[in-house]
Amino acid sequence: MSLRVAVVGLGYWGPNLARNLGVLPDVEVAWLCDGSPEALAHHAPSHPGAQHAGTLDEVLADASVEAVVLATPVGTHAALAEQVLRAGRHCFVEKPLAQSVADAERVVDAARESGTVLMVGHLLQYHPGVAKLRELVESGELGDVHYIYGNRLNLGKLRADENALWSLGAHDVSVVLHLLGEEPSEVSARGASYMREGIEDVVFCFLRFPSGRAAHLHLSWLDPHKERRFTVVGSKRMATFDDMALEQKITVYDKGFDQDASTYGEYITRSGDVYSPTIGNREPLRLECEHFVACIRDGAEPVSGAESGLRVVRVLEALQESLDASRAT
Amino acid sequence: MSLRVAVVGLGYWGPNLARNLGVLPDVEVAWLCDGSPEALAHHAPSHPGAQHAGTLDEVLADASVEAVVLATPVGTHAALAEQVLRAGRHCFVEKPLAQSVADAERVVDAARESGTVLMVGHLLQYHPGVAKLRELVESGELGDVHYIYGNRLNLGKLRADENALWSLGAHDVSVVLHLLGEEPSEVSARGASYMREGIEDVVFCFLRFPSGRAAHLHLSWLDPHKERRFTVVGSKRMATFDDMALEQKITVYDKGFDQDASTYGEYITRSGDVYSPTIGNREPLRLECEHFVACIRDGAEPVSGAESGLRVVRVLEALQESLDASRAT
Amino acid sequence: MSLRVAVVGLGYWGPNLARNLGVLPDVEVAWLCDGSPEALAHHAPSHPGAQHAGTLDEVLADASVEAVVLATPVGTHAALAEQVLRAGRHCFVEKPLAQSVADAERVVDAARESGTVLMVGHLLQYHPGVAKLRELVESGELGDVHYIYGNRLNLGKLRADENALWSLGAHDVSVVLHLLGEEPSEVSARGASYMREGIEDVVFCFLRFPSGRAAHLHLSWLDPHKERRFTVVGSKRMATFDDMALEQKITVYDKGFDQDASTYGEYITRSGDVYSPTIGNREPLRLECEHFVACIRDGAEPVSGAESGLRVVRVLEALQESLDASRAT
Amino acid sequence: MSLRVAVVGLGYWGPNLARNLGVLPDVEVAWLCDGSPEALAHHAPSHPGAQHAGTLDEVLADASVEAVVLATPVGTHAALAEQVLRAGRHCFVEKPLAQSVADAERVVDAARESGTVLMVGHLLQYHPGVAKLRELVESGELGDVHYIYGNRLNLGKLRADENALWSLGAHDVSVVLHLLGEEPSEVSARGASYMREGIEDVVFCFLRFPSGRAAHLHLSWLDPHKERRFTVVGSKRMATFDDMALEQKITVYDKGFDQDASTYGEYITRSGDVYSPTIGNREPLRLECEHFVACIRDGAEPVSGAESGLRVVRVLEALQESLDASRAT
Repeated sequence: MSLRVAVVGLGYWGPNLARNLGVLPDVEVAWLCDGSPEALAHHAPSHPGAQHAGTLDEVLADASVEAVVLATPVGTHAALAEQVLRAGRHCFVEKPLAQSVADAERVVDAARESGTVLMVGHLLQYHPGVAKLRELVESGELGDVHYIYGNRLNLGKLRADENALWSLGAHDVSVVLHLLGEEPSEVSARGASYMREGIEDVVFCFLRFPSGRAAHLHLSWLDPHKERRFTVVGSKRMATFDDMALEQKITVYDKGFDQDASTYGEYITRSGDVYSPTIGNREPLRLECEHFVACIRDGAEPVSGAESGLRVVRVLEALQESLDASRAT
Repeated sequence: MSLRVAVVGLGYWGPNLARNLGVLPDVEVAWLCDGSPEALAHHAPSHPGAQHAGTLDEVLADASVEAVVLATPVGTHAALAEQVLRAGRHCFVEKPLAQSVADAERVVDAARESGTVLMVGHLLQYHPGVAKLRELVESGELGDVHYIYGNRLNLGKLRADENALWSLGAHDVSVVLHLLGEEPSEVSARGASYMREGIEDVVFCFLRFPSGRAAHLHLSWLDPHKERRFTVVGSKRMATFDDMALEQKITVYDKGFDQDASTYGEYITRSGDVYSPTIGNREPLRLECEHFVACIRDGAEPVSGAESGLRVVRVLEALQESLDASRAT
Repeated sequence: MSLRVAVVGLGYWGPNLARNLGVLPDVEVAWLCDGSPEALAHHAPSHPGAQHAGTLDEVLADASVEAVVLATPVGTHAALAEQVLRAGRHCFVEKPLAQSVADAERVVDAARESGTVLMVGHLLQYHPGVAKLRELVESGELGDVHYIYGNRLNLGKLRADENALWSLGAHDVSVVLHLLGEEPSEVSARGASYMREGIEDVVFCFLRFPSGRAAHLHLSWLDPHKERRFTVVGSKRMATFDDMALEQKITVYDKGFDQDASTYGEYITRSGDVYSPTIGNREPLRLECEHFVACIRDGAEPVSGAESGLRVVRVLEALQESLDASRAT
Repeated sequence: MSLRVAVVGLGYWGPNLARNLGVLPDVEVAWLCDGSPEALAHHAPSHPGAQHAGTLDEVLADASVEAVVLATPVGTHAALAEQVLRAGRHCFVEKPLAQSVADAERVVDAARESGTVLMVGHLLQYHPGVAKLRELVESGELGDVHYIYGNRLNLGKLRADENALWSLGAHDVSVVLHLLGEEPSEVSARGASYMREGIEDVVFCFLRFPSGRAAHLHLSWLDPHKERRFTVVGSKRMATFDDMALEQKITVYDKGFDQDASTYGEYITRSGDVYSPTIGNREPLRLECEHFVACIRDGAEPVSGAESGLRVVRVLEALQESLDASRAT
């Protein structure tokens, strides 16, 4: 029998999620939900079988709806997700899970108590390039990871409800935690807002981990360059995942310093072969939707599940506190 | 009559400075000085007219020497520069001027009291690309400068006597101060050392200025990429100086956000023409040497003179304190 | 009243054309036509108002159809276009118009005699980048055009019914003729086939024009690089249209040789400013469809009309003859 | 005992050759020779031990001179080389060996009859990148080579004594022959001259080989781009040698078409891993000079020896004939 899914919020991501879910085998987009009748009318033709609702309550009143996808404004994520979970439905919520740790914890509690699946839309965790990067890290091919840095720059859409840390950095934080598998013991953020008072357009984050590893994020929607890139520096090799590259998104550099056997304490620069392994060419969004459905069917914890989503919010909140403290001085 | 110059320290930069000074009109490389007889012998053929010395004292004993160029290890800069200035000679010292503000101030005092020229080898300030960037900033072509960031990355030479902040960052700090013309009111640095205990291989710096402008530096000699780049984000336009580009080192982007006249508080993304003005193709090192000689002749204050060099050390020291404080937590 | 259009051939381009025509104001996709019932069924949902036909005859039997879009296999272009035009309907036919000059001339005759619009789908002529390139050529900004070269390389789809000259080169030939406004007086082509006997995978073409200007095309679907680029070398400036660039598709170089006033017959290399003007960001396919409809409404000759399409076939046929002659030796 | 070498012609290449020969063990630059006393005076300080001559006769009068390096204007290569060889001395002559096959054959005859070493300065044959490319070709790693193409573009120095074919193309022809090991059975060239009557600024060459392999050269000194690149397309893999890249000069692409086992005659596009092997970082010019000296010492035939240099001239002359024939039509 088909899994009946409701998609709530028909802004940018909602319709994309609906389209990708709609083509999966044995998945039915049963409801489209948005407060705007125009939005519903606009997207109706693409999902002729779906019913329309103006509120989440209407959707949840249909007992046959098993899963709800939330692509609503960020300020509503936590409350709506909690409502969905408390109603005993599986919930996919766009990133970030919440705008505070307290809110995120309430959602995670709801998921645990309801025994349903909670998945956060940390899309990059489903990108084949990130999967390859993780494989390189975990296989030891890079040696010990020293540090990671992410560059997410663009002349992008200014947001009024999120700063660059929460809007852009949620991606990078989720990837860094995914790659390193530990939470930072020290975080620091600095930024500045130029376009809208109090909404940072550019943010720099530093994270230090208990293992001694470090990460840095350079986030900006006010930049002449368009960069979406991670660099991992390991003791044996270094690797880059460049999502703006049309081909060769992953590059592994046999670069580093070798101890000079002939001298004490001297190092020799090693600059060896460079290679770009192929990565799968499937769309991250499709893979993400498939994963959500598979976790529901198998009762499995999603890669970007409750705990994972909470960890991201925990780091974002800590970074925001550092940002606020710096601004206050 | 020829200006008689002594070059002290025949490592990497000393011979380059000697070569560039030696071809200037009415300049004579009168002395080569190094503690190593092998180094002296190796460079002797390029300067057949120069006398050789093993110590600065010998050089200063020659009353006809008017100017001394110091390209010695960084730990000796301040003491030797003070000695040169107190001996009434003009002094060019490689960057940074000193390893502490206290030391730098002593040198600056010596320069003021002796009335001689003190110039610090902040080479980038003599780069035609930086000159063009400054022209763009000062002409208002970029509008108000919002922030600047520098990327100085490489798989480079590991140093034992300086970390990446002092070795690489001295360049970037000098350029940022040169472009903005003010000193930061808040600085923050984070970094990590992997190759040698206590010597940071990678450092991230944030500077906030009284005007509200900001700067960020990403410094590393442990990176797969080779980047030497400044990006200036202004309210009207953005510009990049990319020193790794073979051509088109300067690029100006007509990019930004414009207030939408038809709505309240909304912004429209503007992505207009891009252009790369030509810049002079003269070598920064030659220009730097010419400037030193011209300042001596005209009794002028060098662009990277005493106060300028002191300001750079002040910022580096403050960044180092932030780095140390973070490490200690 | 709406213009009723039939789209014939539902392979790759047909559905794209139907989709773009379908959203134009006062245009109705009245018929979808394809010999394959599966293809019709697959595309039916996107055009719920369209009737279905298995043959062109059925379509033409509907007297209310005013225009027919042909996106059928290349071998059928000429015969079907002639049938459409002789039936008094306007015709858009995918490039190339025909596989021989004789066939193309029959179609052009049919268009002239029927007084209807014939337009050939030379898509690049509707690309804002080509429009900008033409503007640069015609405004004299480049000086006199010396020569143009095109690179169209890829690891692409092998074709069994066309070689790289006809499949890829039709684009480049149409652009070169569009930019220069004259037909070549000398053509030469060389190529080689590796994957399928007699079907060239790589072709090099040289064209010399009566004015002395020249053009070269490098065409290949068996190449590690992906290039889609035109370079125009003029007496004053040079320009590139790089369709693979995400931004800055057009670049103008103030480069060339200047007569040295101080010597006789010597030249000085000039390497001045480089700039990238913005170009419109509208989709060429949408612009092409709008142009077809506008020409029907205004009774105007399309930019890529009958004579233009015939000229392209004339040049392609001459190049093919050169290719065959070389192969025979 | 030291090998005594004379360097004749102190324009651009002569001094470079002298400098590189001068530092080799047991090699002595015994004579500098140039018709211009100013040129001799200018380069004298770099070779304090060398005697000076205004003519080749003076040099050859010194019986202790064993080898002569000719870096004179291209029109003099053949006659001077013949004189050197007939005088029983080893001869290195800058490329091309001669401006006609007849002249080149006379020099080759002289070398054979004198039993001395004749080496032509086809510098690229000593480039580690070309060596790696050849290794890739010969090891079968690329499969069967289908075709090679070279791009040598620049806004370069206009020449009055050579067109772009002879000046730039001599490099590419020598590399193509070196890589393929056979001589072309069909050649074709087209070009155009804009700056000086009769001196082609841009030339396109096509070569077809008895094995069915092909090559194409795009040569121009009137171009906005700076390219120095070879691409080799093989049946299994493709490779590029890009001499403008700062790193990763060689790239191997696991790209091609594979027969689809499930269908008859269909192909599947394969786009696999990409890698850049390290290549040696020694200067080609140094390697070339070492090779000349080694061949003299070992009595070996140089890689770019008499027969090899003659083959290049044979191909260039055939290409020039094609160019002339086209121009005449």
